[in-house]
Amino acid sequence: MKDLKKYRKRSRHLYRLLSIAIAAIILTLIVPAIQAQDDTTVTPETISALQGSIDTTWVLLTGFLVFFMQVGFAMLEAGFIQQKGVVNALLENFMDAGLTGLAFWAVGFGLAFGTPHASGLFGTSNFFLSDALTYADGAPVYGGAGLSTFTFFFFQFAFAATASTITTGAMAERTDFIGDVIYSIIAGAIIYPIVVHWIWGGGWLAQRGFYDFAGSTVVHTVGGVMALMGAIMLGPRVGRVFGQMPKPHNLSLAMLGAGILWFGWYGFNPGSTLGTGNTGLMGLVTVNTTLACSAGTVVAMFFLYFRTGKWDLGITLNGALAGLVAITAGCAFVAPWASVVIGALAGIVVILAVDLIEALKIDDPVGAFAVHGACGIFGTLMIGILGQPELTNGAGGLLLGGGFDMFINQLIGSVSVIIWTGVTIGITFAALKAVGHLRVSPKADEVGIDVYEHGASVWPDVLSLPGDGPMAGSESLGAKSPAVGD
Amino acid sequence: MKDLKKYRKRSRHLYRLLSIAIAAIILTLIVPAIQAQDDTTVTPETISALQGSIDTTWVLLTGFLVFFMQVGFAMLEAGFIQQKGVVNALLENFMDAGLTGLAFWAVGFGLAFGTPHASGLFGTSNFFLSDALTYADGAPVYGGAGLSTFTFFFFQFAFAATASTITTGAMAERTDFIGDVIYSIIAGAIIYPIVVHWIWGGGWLAQRGFYDFAGSTVVHTVGGVMALMGAIMLGPRVGRVFGQMPKPHNLSLAMLGAGILWFGWYGFNPGSTLGTGNTGLMGLVTVNTTLACSAGTVVAMFFLYFRTGKWDLGITLNGALAGLVAITAGCAFVAPWASVVIGALAGIVVILAVDLIEALKIDDPVGAFAVHGACGIFGTLMIGILGQPELTNGAGGLLLGGGFDMFINQLIGSVSVIIWTGVTIGITFAALKAVGHLRVSPKADEVGIDVYEHGASVWPDVLSLPGDGPMAGSESLGAKSPAVGD
Amino acid sequence: MKDLKKYRKRSRHLYRLLSIAIAAIILTLIVPAIQAQDDTTVTPETISALQGSIDTTWVLLTGFLVFFMQVGFAMLEAGFIQQKGVVNALLENFMDAGLTGLAFWAVGFGLAFGTPHASGLFGTSNFFLSDALTYADGAPVYGGAGLSTFTFFFFQFAFAATASTITTGAMAERTDFIGDVIYSIIAGAIIYPIVVHWIWGGGWLAQRGFYDFAGSTVVHTVGGVMALMGAIMLGPRVGRVFGQMPKPHNLSLAMLGAGILWFGWYGFNPGSTLGTGNTGLMGLVTVNTTLACSAGTVVAMFFLYFRTGKWDLGITLNGALAGLVAITAGCAFVAPWASVVIGALAGIVVILAVDLIEALKIDDPVGAFAVHGACGIFGTLMIGILGQPELTNGAGGLLLGGGFDMFINQLIGSVSVIIWTGVTIGITFAALKAVGHLRVSPKADEVGIDVYEHGASVWPDVLSLPGDGPMAGSESLGAKSPAVGD
Repeated sequence: MKDLKKYRKRSRHLYRLLSIAIAAIILTLIVPAIQAQDDTTVTPETISALQGSIDTTWVLLTGFLVFFMQVGFAMLEAGFIQQKGVVNALLENFMDAGLTGLAFWAVGFGLAFGTPHASGLFGTSNFFLSDALTYADGAPVYGGAGLSTFTFFFFQFAFAATASTITTGAMAERTDFIGDVIYSIIAGAIIYPIVVHWIWGGGWLAQRGFYDFAGSTVVHTVGGVMALMGAIMLGPRVGRVFGQMPKPHNLSLAMLGAGILWFGWYGFNPGSTLGTGNTGLMGLVTVNTTLACSAGTVVAMFFLYFRTGKWDLGITLNGALAGLVAITAGCAFVAPWASVVIGALAGIVVILAVDLIEALKIDDPVGAFAVHGACGIFGTLMIGILGQPELTNGAGGLLLGGGFDMFINQLIGSVSVIIWTGVTIGITFAALKAVGHLRVSPKADEVGIDVYEHGASVWPDVLSLPGDGPMAGSESLGAKSPAVGD
Repeated sequence: MKDLKKYRKRSRHLYRLLSIAIAAIILTLIVPAIQAQDDTTVTPETISALQGSIDTTWVLLTGFLVFFMQVGFAMLEAGFIQQKGVVNALLENFMDAGLTGLAFWAVGFGLAFGTPHASGLFGTSNFFLSDALTYADGAPVYGGAGLSTFTFFFFQFAFAATASTITTGAMAERTDFIGDVIYSIIAGAIIYPIVVHWIWGGGWLAQRGFYDFAGSTVVHTVGGVMALMGAIMLGPRVGRVFGQMPKPHNLSLAMLGAGILWFGWYGFNPGSTLGTGNTGLMGLVTVNTTLACSAGTVVAMFFLYFRTGKWDLGITLNGALAGLVAITAGCAFVAPWASVVIGALAGIVVILAVDLIEALKIDDPVGAFAVHGACGIFGTLMIGILGQPELTNGAGGLLLGGGFDMFINQLIGSVSVIIWTGVTIGITFAALKAVGHLRVSPKADEVGIDVYEHGASVWPDVLSLPGDGPMAGSESLGAKSPAVGD
Repeated sequence: MKDLKKYRKRSRHLYRLLSIAIAAIILTLIVPAIQAQDDTTVTPETISALQGSIDTTWVLLTGFLVFFMQVGFAMLEAGFIQQKGVVNALLENFMDAGLTGLAFWAVGFGLAFGTPHASGLFGTSNFFLSDALTYADGAPVYGGAGLSTFTFFFFQFAFAATASTITTGAMAERTDFIGDVIYSIIAGAIIYPIVVHWIWGGGWLAQRGFYDFAGSTVVHTVGGVMALMGAIMLGPRVGRVFGQMPKPHNLSLAMLGAGILWFGWYGFNPGSTLGTGNTGLMGLVTVNTTLACSAGTVVAMFFLYFRTGKWDLGITLNGALAGLVAITAGCAFVAPWASVVIGALAGIVVILAVDLIEALKIDDPVGAFAVHGACGIFGTLMIGILGQPELTNGAGGLLLGGGFDMFINQLIGSVSVIIWTGVTIGITFAALKAVGHLRVSPKADEVGIDVYEHGASVWPDVLSLPGDGPMAGSESLGAKSPAVGD
């Protein structure tokens, strides 16, 4: 009985112990649950929301820089052309952004990034950003977590505006303004977006593995080819003597423009990472952009010095842009040393291209084709030669053990885009010519396009040297206030 | 006894099992604790620190863009006005940022965002940023986790500087410099900050649910009304013929200025999210800003073309700014299509407003009231008409099912701000007039304000057309070096 | 037996309970493990990757702003100097960035941040960014998690370019172009990077606890001393009358330049946090920069007004820059009120320094030494006087209870850098002089350096006042196109 009592006592002990144990177990089960409740704020969803915030911050801010390039192009062109066409150039560059904004919103973005058509040739949805803003359960949904459709649209709009603006430089001082409005809309709504779809929108060139990180082909080859076609189909400015460029309006503006472009290019290339997940790549792209531009600047300056004995500002600025354009395709796919090589060669390519265009008696007032067309093509092809295997899914360029495959693929892409752009813009310009809206009326050549089309001159207070600037009789044609209706 | 032995044996078993169980329990309790120790680096605090870093990055960088608008305003004004007042305009726009910096630090920020006074009319603390930097336990505390008081102050300073600068355009070429210094301080220290408190600082209009996301009312209506009052009370420039704006100094600068402003507006509107938590909203605001500006640009350009047959650069620039000003209030509250509508209408509003101001014989050299005042009011009211219910807490504008409530509320806010600003700046200008410091001495009209007030001309090397620029005798009045003391 | 039966029954109960308990325990052990598996995406590594993304976003974007300062310096200098040397100034400022890019990549970055030499005087590795891009296991490694070597390189390159560009202003209009190229390379490859190593690269001044947050010494004192040495060794421009600065080319450009510099300084100072972990510091640095600049602007403007009765634009711009330069060292180490004091005093220091340089008959066309040298030294020393104890590891400046220690340490650092820079650049200039490449040929003084070195003039269309701008015969010397090869 003693034992039994002991047993019972022990039994009670056991029960007590067990109840403690169970309580402990329950506690152990509940506490982590409570902790988990605290921790629900740190779920993978929280992290991806943060990543979205960072990515959006990066893409929007770099997109703003790309937009600022509009101002750079305007200043560069205003600086390089003759005084009597500056107002025309300023207005074209400025309103171009507005036209492209509306055209890309209505049509272009859908063609570029809408649901792909089976052909791989264009997108078919999201016109007028129709899919971007919906109201699920009454609350706004912006068409995408993290990087919303709006953010992506804006970034792409800024690129589209750039492509469109490149063209005006080659067509400066002699394009009918209505014609300029019409071709800018067509370029921003159709011609450019379709190339975007091919390469960045999952289209046929994307599927072939064509490399163009930030647009040596998409933006600059398209812009450069349109520029060339425009310059050819317009014919030269009246009185243009080949081999001798007319006196520039204002080299301070030109340098300001090139400086803004270099600055804006740090949006263009690094921003094309479209996110911040790969911080090493963000840095590499930035450094490659810097080195190629530096090399282009220095080499173009010295190359011309050896030829002429003068340190030429205009060519140096174009050398910088040449380096930038050329590295735009490859900045994520080559090593820094290769960027120096590409930029340096581009500094020579741009000068030879200017020579060629002059020799062909094509009047390109700012060298738009030489910079954007020639160096855009050159840079696209150079990936096929200097592409780093580790940065191109193991492929590698010709000189880095990859054989001709990549080079040929790059060539196919570049040529395809040249043909598409050349043909479509050629048809556009031909149609405008047919209806008398390609080249400005010959009357404009007498008084200057600024006075004829815009009733203005860039600095009416300033007495210009004879033969340049608006003619003496310009005011009778209606030069007047900028800010008053009539 | 056998049983008892068995029992004891079993008891020992139980004890052993229990000890294992308890050990296991203890382990279960300790292990998560150990894990938690690892996880302390990933607590909600970690996440909110990261969010603070992203938000600060966004708000500072967009604030820098807003600051850059100072340069845009300076270039726009320098480009539009007459050559002989350009140095005056440049200095006013530049030093304005400095004056506002000090005035907003000492007084304005406290009135805007200090502890609210019971009246809901102004804040009452944090003058000289006195609450922002403290040293708790000897270590610095910056007045706020995440988005510190300093970061917020800077962003708000940039807006204050903008508001102040808008005014100078309308008062160009004829304002006494000391008068300019005094009214700029009063505007930056008192008039503007009190409106900020009403709408963004938790004051009475904020409590009524008044909508002004980035400042169509707070910044642009205030700036525009001050501009109008200034232009009226100063009277027109000597020799001003209404219906015919004097020849602008330099349209390249004007376009540069407008371009910088468009660029800077991407800080102004998207930055006003004041954080990055809602990435969809960041994108929406950016796109709405872009579309409204695009529409304003294109519509103003075409509207004037239909009237005059000329493609007017000045009006197109002002059309872009009109679209930007008008969408500033509503960019977070309307859908993209509505932004196009608002921007397009603003492109017409600005031209009609310029007409009206001219008809009233008020001399506003850059159209500051038309752009900032008229379009600021217009944009504020348009939220009451096109406000999207899902983006306005279900309210919705008149045409989107919300009835007149929102429109009337917007009207009350806009009118209140107009009255407050008009009366207070009116008193300020009247006081300046009484002491002879509103309008520059008539002597300045003979030699040009640049020579009279600043002893300088903008490009003294350039031979100007007769009747413009500094007079022949200007140098005898003291035109001299910019960088040497005497 | 009944008891025993009971006991057994109970025993079975116990066993059942125990098995439940053990099952529960096992469950408790397993469940968190499962949860942990979910949570593996939210590890400290995830967090540090996010931090890296934010930091990279911040450092790159602020670095872009610093780069943009190149354009600001170019515009400032082009605006302040005489018309006939503007093209020269534009080209030097622009191509300088390219030269520095290549020189800093090849040599400078390695000297500044490579593996420290035991002497503490220079770095010894990572030339040509050789350590930055490696391919571990075939995949790219960018030389650093989070803030990659590339990102850091770019930020430092932008600073190096700034240092190099400061010099050109003082040497404007009369430096041989080849000489400019050579000294720019030496400065960007050797002289500047070694100072960087001393202070930011862990060298001997860093070890002494020398304070220079963003470069009042590293960048501005180095740039200012090189500027002074250049101005002295070149001698003044032909026809320079001391006490009377030649007429500036274009004050709009000067103000544009100063505005861009103020804007870019928001990259320079806040970006020097090199990360976003301390959001309060980011805000403090931004506000201190703003307040010092504001105070410098306003004080310089009033100081000169009291002396001359004119509101001088040039001096006001230099006052702003003086405030910015002076606060660059201390923006992270002083309270806002102290920033106002430092900026205000700098606005006076810059004017007195200009007076001194003029009195010494040294020709510094843009006041580069007064702004960058004098105010750089002044700002460096002021940390020793107004350093806030809580922001300087408890040390504190002279007036804030810290005694003379900090001031003396700042003085040692400043003087050491002045001596190093003065001696090395002096040797460089002397060598250039010896080979006839320091000062441009006297022929250039007849036709203007733009025509002589560059075959161009900044706005050839514009009729200039007699005695300024390119001479009548300039075109025969080869003024020609900017964009054509020959």
